Amino acid sequence: MEQGYGEIICRDDFGVILDDVMGTDATIVRAARTSTKGISLNNDDEPLSERDAGLINYLMRDRHSGPFEHVVLRFGLEIPLFVGRQLLRHRTNSFSEESGRYRELKPVFYVPALDRPLIQKGKVGDYTFEPGSKEQVSMVRAELVHSYSTAWSSYRVMLDDGIAREISRCCLPGAIYSNILVTTKLRNLLQFLALRTRDARALIPSHPQYEIEQVALAMEDVVAERFPVTYAAWVNNGRPQL
Amino acid sequence: MEQGYGEIICRDDFGVILDDVMGTDATIVRAARTSTKGISLNNDDEPLSERDAGLINYLMRDRHSGPFEHVVLRFGLEIPLFVGRQLLRHRTNSFSEESGRYRELKPVFYVPALDRPLIQKGKVGDYTFEPGSKEQVSMVRAELVHSYSTAWSSYRVMLDDGIAREISRCCLPGAIYSNILVTTKLRNLLQFLALRTRDARALIPSHPQYEIEQVALAMEDVVAERFPVTYAAWVNNGRPQL
Amino acid sequence: MEQGYGEIICRDDFGVILDDVMGTDATIVRAARTSTKGISLNNDDEPLSERDAGLINYLMRDRHSGPFEHVVLRFGLEIPLFVGRQLLRHRTNSFSEESGRYRELKPVFYVPALDRPLIQKGKVGDYTFEPGSKEQVSMVRAELVHSYSTAWSSYRVMLDDGIAREISRCCLPGAIYSNILVTTKLRNLLQFLALRTRDARALIPSHPQYEIEQVALAMEDVVAERFPVTYAAWVNNGRPQL
Amino acid sequence: MEQGYGEIICRDDFGVILDDVMGTDATIVRAARTSTKGISLNNDDEPLSERDAGLINYLMRDRHSGPFEHVVLRFGLEIPLFVGRQLLRHRTNSFSEESGRYRELKPVFYVPALDRPLIQKGKVGDYTFEPGSKEQVSMVRAELVHSYSTAWSSYRVMLDDGIAREISRCCLPGAIYSNILVTTKLRNLLQFLALRTRDARALIPSHPQYEIEQVALAMEDVVAERFPVTYAAWVNNGRPQL
Repeated sequence: MEQGYGEIICRDDFGVILDDVMGTDATIVRAARTSTKGISLNNDDEPLSERDAGLINYLMRDRHSGPFEHVVLRFGLEIPLFVGRQLLRHRTNSFSEESGRYRELKPVFYVPALDRPLIQKGKVGDYTFEPGSKEQVSMVRAELVHSYSTAWSSYRVMLDDGIAREISRCCLPGAIYSNILVTTKLRNLLQFLALRTRDARALIPSHPQYEIEQVALAMEDVVAERFPVTYAAWVNNGRPQL
Repeated sequence: MEQGYGEIICRDDFGVILDDVMGTDATIVRAARTSTKGISLNNDDEPLSERDAGLINYLMRDRHSGPFEHVVLRFGLEIPLFVGRQLLRHRTNSFSEESGRYRELKPVFYVPALDRPLIQKGKVGDYTFEPGSKEQVSMVRAELVHSYSTAWSSYRVMLDDGIAREISRCCLPGAIYSNILVTTKLRNLLQFLALRTRDARALIPSHPQYEIEQVALAMEDVVAERFPVTYAAWVNNGRPQL
Repeated sequence: MEQGYGEIICRDDFGVILDDVMGTDATIVRAARTSTKGISLNNDDEPLSERDAGLINYLMRDRHSGPFEHVVLRFGLEIPLFVGRQLLRHRTNSFSEESGRYRELKPVFYVPALDRPLIQKGKVGDYTFEPGSKEQVSMVRAELVHSYSTAWSSYRVMLDDGIAREISRCCLPGAIYSNILVTTKLRNLLQFLALRTRDARALIPSHPQYEIEQVALAMEDVVAERFPVTYAAWVNNGRPQL
Repeated sequence: MEQGYGEIICRDDFGVILDDVMGTDATIVRAARTSTKGISLNNDDEPLSERDAGLINYLMRDRHSGPFEHVVLRFGLEIPLFVGRQLLRHRTNSFSEESGRYRELKPVFYVPALDRPLIQKGKVGDYTFEPGSKEQVSMVRAELVHSYSTAWSSYRVMLDDGIAREISRCCLPGAIYSNILVTTKLRNLLQFLALRTRDARALIPSHPQYEIEQVALAMEDVVAERFPVTYAAWVNNGRPQL
């Protein structure tokens, strides 16, 4: 969804594009076998045997995380600043971000989709979310659009008067979209998924914010497609942190 | 400076408090001598000899960075979100932050002090900053206060209607203050200072944003006081990244 | 146990000395509360309330690992090179080591104590250890002492003829003792303990080598004494990796 | 060179094989431009323009290291344990190693080549190496072969009597070869090269041991071939640590 409101644009989705990848499930098998067989030639496009799949399941079950570090993914993301901030907490990754100091930002802001639950019940560490009423949905949209429009207007006024971008942006909200390029090792991506998705099959419960969960789920689809054996082992072993 | 504007408060300074520290210049000497003398008993409150100081200078000159990792500092910070975001890019540190999901934020926002230069001349990687005119200073203050007040009002309206904090905060600007506890090794703190201060004596130029530079300078004062020998060696060797 | 055999000395124990520490259980409570209460003044010598202890247990149970990074320990170690090599795999730590390039090493070598099990039954990932016979214990001791003595003799011959230390040491065995200074955050130390101890209460089994386990157990004693609440929570929650 | 001496084999070279790579010089340009242009589609096989090359040189000159993290290399190595130990100090890398616990090691040991300088003149941090005399070269070879053979013999005796591999290996020297799979980001590889090669063009002098320098030089050849623009910028800017 993307909708214009005067000078600003609101959207409720996130851009998650796989930019590049190095390695396959077979890489992980080879890496693990270094301990017992030494270095072997790269044949990572070969299909896995059942024995290979069993090895990956064993690695996951007993949390031998090292071999999952030899596979690397790079993603291009379009996400609001407040989601980016949560992403930046994952310190093993490499990030390159769009800069509000070096570039005028674009007037694109996040608004919750109609089915995004708005009401939190319960307390820290033990709560659920419920949908808002129709009136609440409308009110939230109206308040956010009003607030974003005001902020954007101030931003433009300051820029047009020659004020530096890095000052002018002070008023811009956490909902403004930004671009981030992120390079991550598969081990660290699985750790990220464990923390940033909520799943009944998870051994350890996690309570991510809805928005970063959508980003994580899009990355999870990539993992499932590109690393089917590792992904199955991860799910079957309770979606562990690695 | 702290000033009220209706429901909101604006300030132009940053809170930087040393929370705890482990080690002294002598720790670094002992750590370095592990390579030639092995482990020695902790006598880190003893004064340094000239020979000790020479060793620290040699470590710094030739970028033997390891020994500087055995000294650790913890700071409590009150800084705007946009400064915190730059801080989070330093991935070797440990952070605990105030959460806009778990807590209602306070209506405290950053505005540039009167002497904060507002006008950027030049291009990316090669620019200077100049003061704004009296009119520009007033205009910036007015726009920011207007924009912050609007955002805060929307935030309150949503919260008061039962909308979750994590949604309501979407409209809050990067200028809102947050609290961060950060634990850093001295090596990593010096790297941070190299990147986040601008200094004519630096071998490699750096172009930090003014606001994070103020935070860095307050931390630099702590380093200068607590680790005088290391600090002198760092400055005399061109304020290098480690 | 320390015993001389001609020019060399054999020992079967490990040196683990706490060099310094920053923080207490209370630091972790304060760090965790940053998210809901912001920064507070350091009162880390105050006793913990039951509510505080409950918070630490909750952090551990749900693997909120961040707060455990604000507490730091520094250890001085005397351990064989082969144990040090396993220790170096824990990449979040800071290490300063005795150098075989900069210093003549001392003729101190590791031999298994009489009760160190010598016989491995089973296969990779699923095995147990059993004691050796009296003959095997004697044979191992004799072979090791013979081999160490030969290596030491060659090392001395080369050094005495003017050959560089870094070449001469090529013949020295993994059992020679070295000194390492290691600085570690409590989170990373608990991860190390999870991986380098074997314990029936652990949720995820681990199969560390006996020797590094002795080093880990000595560190575990320090954790239990200095951070009793965190330690109890870690044990009660299955000695998890963090 | 590979030569048999009874049951053991001695060699004086190192195995360095590029296993896989993700990215090109163009990746670095795209990553850097994220700050000013946002995310762009992957066209990393396109040739670089002069302007692109200028950007890479600027990044290198001013130590904007981030973009160099989005390119990743994986190497398979055959190196002695003592070289591997130095490699393990580079903590940002991912390692999978051959295990002396899970596998009987092979009787392959490092001996210095005839042209490897043997005599160190000067003191720590300021020394040079000179060739040994013909007699010294012979003596070193003889002592090492004798010592390795004795160690290998003890290892075999213990294994053949049923002693666990992890005990039997105690006597094996640092010169025994091992296999390591290492995955490294280009930024971290350049940091490794800065520290582990000696070069008159380097701004900061480094004093690596000859053996790891040979490994580093072989990796440097890969960087020069695969990332010619980055490599030229790195050399022209004084082979800096990143």
